[in-house]
Amino acid sequence: MLTVYDVIAKKRDGGILAEEEIRFLIDGYCAGQIPDYQISAWLMAVYLRGMTAEETSILTDVMLRSGDIVDLSQFRHLSADKHSTGGVGDKTTFIVAPLAAVLGCKTAKMSGRGLGHTGGTIDKLEAIPGYRVSLSEKEFRAQVEAIGVSVIGATGDIAPADKLLYALRDVTATVDSLPLIASSIMSKKLAAGTSSIVLDVTVGSGAFMKTQEDAEALAHAMVDIGMRAGKRITAVLTDMDQPLGRTIGNALELEEVIAFLQGDDAGLDDLREVSLTLAAHMAANVHGISPDEAYRRAYDAWKSGAAYEKFVEWITAQGGDRTWLCDPTVRKSAPYAYEVKAPCDGYLAFADAEQIGLAAMQLGAGRKTKDDIIDMAAGIRMYRKVGEAVRVGETVAVLYTSDESRLADAEARFVSAVRYSDEKPQRRAHILGVIRGDEIEET
Amino acid sequence: MLTVYDVIAKKRDGGILAEEEIRFLIDGYCAGQIPDYQISAWLMAVYLRGMTAEETSILTDVMLRSGDIVDLSQFRHLSADKHSTGGVGDKTTFIVAPLAAVLGCKTAKMSGRGLGHTGGTIDKLEAIPGYRVSLSEKEFRAQVEAIGVSVIGATGDIAPADKLLYALRDVTATVDSLPLIASSIMSKKLAAGTSSIVLDVTVGSGAFMKTQEDAEALAHAMVDIGMRAGKRITAVLTDMDQPLGRTIGNALELEEVIAFLQGDDAGLDDLREVSLTLAAHMAANVHGISPDEAYRRAYDAWKSGAAYEKFVEWITAQGGDRTWLCDPTVRKSAPYAYEVKAPCDGYLAFADAEQIGLAAMQLGAGRKTKDDIIDMAAGIRMYRKVGEAVRVGETVAVLYTSDESRLADAEARFVSAVRYSDEKPQRRAHILGVIRGDEIEET
Repeated sequence: MLTVYDVIAKKRDGGILAEEEIRFLIDGYCAGQIPDYQISAWLMAVYLRGMTAEETSILTDVMLRSGDIVDLSQFRHLSADKHSTGGVGDKTTFIVAPLAAVLGCKTAKMSGRGLGHTGGTIDKLEAIPGYRVSLSEKEFRAQVEAIGVSVIGATGDIAPADKLLYALRDVTATVDSLPLIASSIMSKKLAAGTSSIVLDVTVGSGAFMKTQEDAEALAHAMVDIGMRAGKRITAVLTDMDQPLGRTIGNALELEEVIAFLQGDDAGLDDLREVSLTLAAHMAANVHGISPDEAYRRAYDAWKSGAAYEKFVEWITAQGGDRTWLCDPTVRKSAPYAYEVKAPCDGYLAFADAEQIGLAAMQLGAGRKTKDDIIDMAAGIRMYRKVGEAVRVGETVAVLYTSDESRLADAEARFVSAVRYSDEKPQRRAHILGVIRGDEIEET
Repeated sequence: MLTVYDVIAKKRDGGILAEEEIRFLIDGYCAGQIPDYQISAWLMAVYLRGMTAEETSILTDVMLRSGDIVDLSQFRHLSADKHSTGGVGDKTTFIVAPLAAVLGCKTAKMSGRGLGHTGGTIDKLEAIPGYRVSLSEKEFRAQVEAIGVSVIGATGDIAPADKLLYALRDVTATVDSLPLIASSIMSKKLAAGTSSIVLDVTVGSGAFMKTQEDAEALAHAMVDIGMRAGKRITAVLTDMDQPLGRTIGNALELEEVIAFLQGDDAGLDDLREVSLTLAAHMAANVHGISPDEAYRRAYDAWKSGAAYEKFVEWITAQGGDRTWLCDPTVRKSAPYAYEVKAPCDGYLAFADAEQIGLAAMQLGAGRKTKDDIIDMAAGIRMYRKVGEAVRVGETVAVLYTSDESRLADAEARFVSAVRYSDEKPQRRAHILGVIRGDEIEET
């Protein structure tokens, strides 16, 4: 007979757990039959002993089956989703989803709020007056069928086992474990029901994974899980050493997205490269075409304005105010704006994405605790990015907030997050690697 | 500011915890401010990452100070205690304590009941009609002062932190960790307040430590803790591959002790060697004499009958029936006795102490759960020990019980626990090593 003690001891001693052992543990925990203190001991054993790809895949499967699984079978092989491991100024969903829709993908996305530097995808969409984050299931499906894209707030009970485990990991120093991270992300993604998945695995100071090596390991683990679950899946490693694009903040980011979709990519090389690449891999997976061919199509969809039109179609279909989208003059900006000036001539050499994200949070752009209310207009606009020249006294960034008292702390944090140098610094590529499920061997 | 999370993460990453960190964790746990699930994650990290001697010593100190500390300062440097890591047929306390008293030590011992093959020391003493396991503190101290020895049931609140931690370790597969074992034992021993301590670290099939290597590591760790706490301390490694002496069971063991103290050591080499050695090291520590000299004195104290007289003095001082001690004919034996016969000519080659202990428990000699009632007369008498010749049909052992229905299972277990061979097996020494605190370097 299986006992919790024996399963803990087996992992403690470096053993490989069988499917029935993992299922016994997680199902028992969800059912309230196994106490926190046994699971946390097991989590620490997993943290220090690791898990094989097979064990990780099983854990993912058990967690995804602990709750609702969205049925997107009506969209057949066309359903596609994109997921980012998180970054600062990460607004690619608003570009990638309409691009992919133009390319024939069906993106039926449920998204979250959460804590962080800015709000989640759903919070950002609420910066658009009138946007409805709640649709009936019928409306949601009909919209995706008709125009190829809808993004609504998460409903139902997706991977409750992951929620329980994550809460325990969060207080027992067992979050940063590769198999636990990979299975947590993938259980939710697989429960979301799409046929294909593109993962944006960010790398750098503003990312969960600070090094290319760690990011590659996570990407491999997740792609492996996806393949074992029968999905077409690709991971794209992207740079997150400085914020993506030039804005951090809910309304600010959407305004940047609109300008970009309207064709203005001046100073937005990173946002363009990352967004087009992610959309291209979605289309490549869905249509079985080469990523290069898919990239060309994505570029055309952007350049021609088709993606912008799709974006407007999507947002207005969900009640978003067309005037707000099309006429920048009607948008309310933050009452307080503070210009950060360059202290010297030279180049911006480093801009710590995580610290800049925290500065945006201090300005009111994100929630520190569940009960915080987001200031939609708050955030940061970067007038200089790493590698660009500055002259003393020029504006490097502007900090926006509706609460003047927040400025001092945020400014201090921002100033200490950036560094200057006399020499033009080398910047690494925006795309640091691509791992395609159909090109790797199952481990 | 210290946080539980940071302390767990530090140990998880192999760091060495500072005194304030260990104190924060354990004191917070005892105060109910830190939940089980954080402590169990920390315990697993300790299990897999280990602890330095310094950390182990600090953990011991924090646990011992979590409850009452017995004040034996009235006995000055003469107070001495003996502790065994546990074995089958382990009855040395009843011999060692009066021997040590004859040699001038003061043994004020509080002892427990507990679960196991037989009862604890206190249960065994209750096999003697009239023996009072509860004395007032005043009576207890006066008796030790007057005759050098008293053994009573544990009172007060000794190392409650250890109790809490042990209960959690027991269900999270974190018991078998050297620093956790060593600190658990030593926190209780140090709280017992004696100036000097002799540890009987058993090795073999019936012991907690199965190998000499593990036993030596545990002995070193405990001696190190004792030295850091300013105690004179010695660990003696003793063989526990087969039961000690020839009896397992509460009344049976006391009867064997009485016969031995009366001078009959026939077939009891192991009991004699272990008991005299332990008593000698107690005296050596207390008086600062050589262990060899102390052994000679212990031998004389036994051979002369002085130890027997001291034993009778001790037991009767606590109300024990003198007639029961001195006249075997008044003792009640078990109503059911079953003889196990040798199936072949040859030698007894192996007698698994742990399995034989469990057989004794099945006969009623020990408690499996807290609520079990001990059958004082139940147990096993070994007529053959490992290395002794047997002829087919000769009695190897007799199983005793007051409940006939228990015989079948116990017999099956006993029979499968012993093995025979044609050749006389080699037996290892009874004393497998001695680690004296004043002879090792602090690590």
